[in-house]
Amino acid sequence: MVTVGIDLGGTNIYAVVLDGEERLGRAKLRTPSTGDRTGVIDVMDAAVRDALGDAGRDIDEVTGVGVGSPGVVMAGTVGGASNVPGFLERFSLADLLKQKVGREVRVTNDVTAAAVAEHRLGAGRGTDDLLAVHVGTGVGGGIILGGRPFEGGAGGAGEFGHIVVRQGGAVCPCGRRGCVEAYAGRRAMTLAAERAKAAGTSTILFDVMEDKGKARATSGVFAAAYERGDTLVADLLDDAIEALGAGIASAVNLLDVDVVVLGGGFADRFGGWFRSRVDAAMRPHLFLQPPRIRVVAAELGDEGGAIGAALLAAEI
Amino acid sequence: MVTVGIDLGGTNIYAVVLDGEERLGRAKLRTPSTGDRTGVIDVMDAAVRDALGDAGRDIDEVTGVGVGSPGVVMAGTVGGASNVPGFLERFSLADLLKQKVGREVRVTNDVTAAAVAEHRLGAGRGTDDLLAVHVGTGVGGGIILGGRPFEGGAGGAGEFGHIVVRQGGAVCPCGRRGCVEAYAGRRAMTLAAERAKAAGTSTILFDVMEDKGKARATSGVFAAAYERGDTLVADLLDDAIEALGAGIASAVNLLDVDVVVLGGGFADRFGGWFRSRVDAAMRPHLFLQPPRIRVVAAELGDEGGAIGAALLAAEI
Repeated sequence: MVTVGIDLGGTNIYAVVLDGEERLGRAKLRTPSTGDRTGVIDVMDAAVRDALGDAGRDIDEVTGVGVGSPGVVMAGTVGGASNVPGFLERFSLADLLKQKVGREVRVTNDVTAAAVAEHRLGAGRGTDDLLAVHVGTGVGGGIILGGRPFEGGAGGAGEFGHIVVRQGGAVCPCGRRGCVEAYAGRRAMTLAAERAKAAGTSTILFDVMEDKGKARATSGVFAAAYERGDTLVADLLDDAIEALGAGIASAVNLLDVDVVVLGGGFADRFGGWFRSRVDAAMRPHLFLQPPRIRVVAAELGDEGGAIGAALLAAEI
Repeated sequence: MVTVGIDLGGTNIYAVVLDGEERLGRAKLRTPSTGDRTGVIDVMDAAVRDALGDAGRDIDEVTGVGVGSPGVVMAGTVGGASNVPGFLERFSLADLLKQKVGREVRVTNDVTAAAVAEHRLGAGRGTDDLLAVHVGTGVGGGIILGGRPFEGGAGGAGEFGHIVVRQGGAVCPCGRRGCVEAYAGRRAMTLAAERAKAAGTSTILFDVMEDKGKARATSGVFAAAYERGDTLVADLLDDAIEALGAGIASAVNLLDVDVVVLGGGFADRFGGWFRSRVDAAMRPHLFLQPPRIRVVAAELGDEGGAIGAALLAAEI
């Protein structure tokens, strides 16, 4: 018997098939960029079938399907995910996907799912208290306490990206001010670069984007502009690193976790240099002395969320 | 059989005797302001005896003694409490007090103990996920998750006062910058008022202090200066309220608790007006919509920490 995990992202839908902790198959499909939630659920179902095909297994052998979803997840329902068509208004993803695939479905926040995977099989092995920080388009968080995913009374916990690090600071894509994500999310950084350019600041970021044939400033575009000495991008990275450092320290001061697992496309692209600087930016704010906290790189990459979702599906 | 709880503060040592949840006796003694930790432990022992005398009970009837201590508590040891003589360097308070009183001792962070009391017998009844915020000389936090005190892997959790709300902001009594306590702790506010006065800002705060015959700017002194229209004090209160609002919202975004119990001498002195303004300052930063969080007043006052410590002693 096997479980299937799905990670639903704004760009891609990943699926993996697990037998216990062993990965038997995988699939990766594009997330629809238009349409409604039915279209998204159809692609999630297709990803399940593709991953099962890759594993040489049948849907009858699946004991449960786990989903790591963006937005705020509560008791199988999802809402507030602006980057997936039809996922802004709250609805029961568990019920709709169950009708489609014919298997029990457990839905979790996507970064919580990634945190479960890193805890069990990745960079968080050996600790039972960790915070996963995902730096990508936005900034997400997932929490493991006492070895279990911590989702809060109503499932709304883990919103690390919306810890306030600068009262009255920059506007965040969430509409509020001074959140970590207002400085450290790639979308917010792109908007800040657009505003700075419109105000006359010199930057090659958007030239690099065009040269690479990209429709948006990807992590690779930011990295290339930085490597070519773009001072605006360097300043934006400084702000992102300081915000992540302060936000992580705040979370550590509150939760006393042992390990922070830093992942996500943006953090992964910049690698060890970025992680070291976040670590250094965090330390001046740590209350507990000597600090026990370690900031480590996520090990499971793009598939972490799907793997964690499959691990959680084993508990259905 | 009964339990005894002690709350060790920088000014007073409270003790209560509980039979289950019923308060049978109490005592309040001054914390030594000079000397070493042995002197403090002698007064803690005296407070236990006084409270037992008040209850008409004997030490032989005590199943355990609980202590709520300032500083960072780890496995019976305490360190980093600068407001109690001899409590800066880490030592085993549990062992030393056990030798003195001849009963098993359990040591907890003081605001965690208060959170336990509010959860079981006070403003947090009916919820299993709450954050207690104590606004007094400093700013402390205590966390209840799933109905249990949450102290982190090594006991260092709950440092709400050192959540960073303004990167690069005001210096906190802890030596770091931009913490909630740097704006909302009475000691930090007093230092800020002293600096402002030295720089030429007009304030009646220190005149009120002298009029009241106080050696320091107590919560009552701040309240009286505010009520007489002191604009510096009003500005400091604004900053304190904004910092508390942002910090509480950050904690709620991370933990999704149901209730924030606001207590401590400073918050209690200003009452419902202060709590309403903290609530209003918090709301613009809340991620989960509609928010479920309620900010309520602590109900157990000065004895909350001792009551919670006695409740935890029942688990020894």
